[in-house]
Amino acid sequence: MKLVVERATLLRALGHVQSVVERRNTIPILSNVLLSADGQSMKLMATDLDLQIVEEAPAAVETPGATTVSAHTLFDIVRKIPDGAQVTLDSSGSRMAVTAGRARFQLQTLPREDFPVIGESDLPVGFRLPAETLVTLIDKTRFAISTEETRYYLNGIFIHAPAGGSTLRAVATDGHRLARVEIPLPEGAGGMPDIIIPRKCVSEVRKLLDERDGEVEIALSAAKIRFAIGQAVLTSKLIDGTFPDYSRVIPTANDKLLKIDPATLAEGVDRVTAIASEKTRAVKLSLDRDRVTLSVTSPENGTASEDVPADYSSGSFEVGFNSRYLLDILGQVEGDLVEVHMADAAAPTLIRETEDSEALYVLMPMRV
Amino acid sequence: MKLVVERATLLRALGHVQSVVERRNTIPILSNVLLSADGQSMKLMATDLDLQIVEEAPAAVETPGATTVSAHTLFDIVRKIPDGAQVTLDSSGSRMAVTAGRARFQLQTLPREDFPVIGESDLPVGFRLPAETLVTLIDKTRFAISTEETRYYLNGIFIHAPAGGSTLRAVATDGHRLARVEIPLPEGAGGMPDIIIPRKCVSEVRKLLDERDGEVEIALSAAKIRFAIGQAVLTSKLIDGTFPDYSRVIPTANDKLLKIDPATLAEGVDRVTAIASEKTRAVKLSLDRDRVTLSVTSPENGTASEDVPADYSSGSFEVGFNSRYLLDILGQVEGDLVEVHMADAAAPTLIRETEDSEALYVLMPMRV
Repeated sequence: MKLVVERATLLRALGHVQSVVERRNTIPILSNVLLSADGQSMKLMATDLDLQIVEEAPAAVETPGATTVSAHTLFDIVRKIPDGAQVTLDSSGSRMAVTAGRARFQLQTLPREDFPVIGESDLPVGFRLPAETLVTLIDKTRFAISTEETRYYLNGIFIHAPAGGSTLRAVATDGHRLARVEIPLPEGAGGMPDIIIPRKCVSEVRKLLDERDGEVEIALSAAKIRFAIGQAVLTSKLIDGTFPDYSRVIPTANDKLLKIDPATLAEGVDRVTAIASEKTRAVKLSLDRDRVTLSVTSPENGTASEDVPADYSSGSFEVGFNSRYLLDILGQVEGDLVEVHMADAAAPTLIRETEDSEALYVLMPMRV
Repeated sequence: MKLVVERATLLRALGHVQSVVERRNTIPILSNVLLSADGQSMKLMATDLDLQIVEEAPAAVETPGATTVSAHTLFDIVRKIPDGAQVTLDSSGSRMAVTAGRARFQLQTLPREDFPVIGESDLPVGFRLPAETLVTLIDKTRFAISTEETRYYLNGIFIHAPAGGSTLRAVATDGHRLARVEIPLPEGAGGMPDIIIPRKCVSEVRKLLDERDGEVEIALSAAKIRFAIGQAVLTSKLIDGTFPDYSRVIPTANDKLLKIDPATLAEGVDRVTAIASEKTRAVKLSLDRDRVTLSVTSPENGTASEDVPADYSSGSFEVGFNSRYLLDILGQVEGDLVEVHMADAAAPTLIRETEDSEALYVLMPMRV
């Protein structure tokens, strides 16, 4: 394989694919990126056996071929090559030469035949989403993904199209909070299997969406999903588990309604928790007619409180929340009013902008 | 004590003093900042028993007095108070109230009488330095300070005025490299004792200099040093030890002279070390007539090399350096030419801009 590629082009593509490569690998070839050249472009592929990324980049190919080299080393080298330079990649035997300007590198290679590839065929369901819709689905749910590895079926975003309905739903929960976003069912997604997209796939897809407008092509089966985003194609195995019946957790009869400016509430919560030591992160909300008093008590440091104006007409009432979880939710509310539906100090609390919002959140109280 | 202070004023002063407070303290009061109010200003003081900082800030004092509260907690609170707010501090009994807008905090206090103070008197030597001169003395030497605690007498910058001379010198070394800067002797510094300023004091002084022009007032004895920088006064104990006779390490008869652009050399070194794994950071310099070839060999990854044009007329010769150490030195050279004086592959190498430069560096080679 021999080709010449612009440093900026190679850097961008490598930036995308090297991110999938784990820093520590017991299988050496998983540290490598598969480079292949044919026609007028090169392909870069990386995998961790569960998630695979392929990206294409324009290149002047002199000799078609393929090889694999350390993804992080090649990325570090290309980062340090001056912008504007032309980079020549030339592989032969067990070496690949990288040259740019006065700098020359000889990298050890491993045979392309040993590189594991996740098949991208057999994905019967296919649909398209605007990039910004996919961003919404991810951003408004991912913070609630569980990090407990024993509950592996909660380690991702659950996507399903409720039977007979006309919506597509994304849900994530860790047992303490739940986030659900609903969008109109895209054409082609009807009858899709219920799937759980693993956290790492979510995170890599999200990074690629930072640089992209336009549409994302999605194809999936019950076992795999593929995202085509610009020049990059991500293919991931899905979590092989059953997502719990989350609908039972969403309260429908909470009778205490607080309406409040989410930004003012979030700033107040952030301020009063300044007094808390790392461990006690509970914030108490004391509700009175048209006012919420936020308070935090820290055994070492003292106390903090702040009054926040609000729209509230039920009886006086106290409830505590994990301040981090509350801030995560408030950070996703876009309007200048949020509805907090409460029942009592121990019951799941429902948070949403309005009844018609695409997103709703459930938060379990803490004892304070 | 009761006073009102602008949030921005309090934040800036707290930002300076809280930096001296260690995150973990076995003596509770060392986590606190001493606040005192009198006349038209407040004073903030923090200490770690070796280093003390006092800063004055304008405030509307209602009731003079003093108390101590957790420095980091108060800093976190003030950071989260909206910019432009007026902050009221009001202490009584074992509590201090902090109020700003709708937010109220009650912080636990410890008695001011328990706060340890380092005396600032008995500092017979006094002189002034322009802030930028002090920045030069620090930046061109601090990277060479040893981090080996057993060699405590190398854990700082050695400052001395050689007897009968007209210069003040700053020196730091860790045994692998040495940095020496020489400036004209400031008025009042003649006959000063040899001192070693500890790393933490150097680092806090340097932070304050980021925000300052003008002059710095320095006063010292053989045991203590005081820096007055703007509204802040830092007082530090000095390292009680003997700095080794470093002059013997500075080579005077190295006969191989390389003249090279420091930026080009640094970029090349940075590039070829991209191939190195964390541990092997040696870069080899192969010198030929008017050319240096930089090279790195990594057992896992392969090899890297780069030719850098240079001015060199002695015989062909190879020498290895720790790339990090070489980059530290090159990063401090300001001109577009640096002189590298070498003897052989095992002898101390002298690096300086010219014979007349204020700074010189000595670097021990590595075997490559």
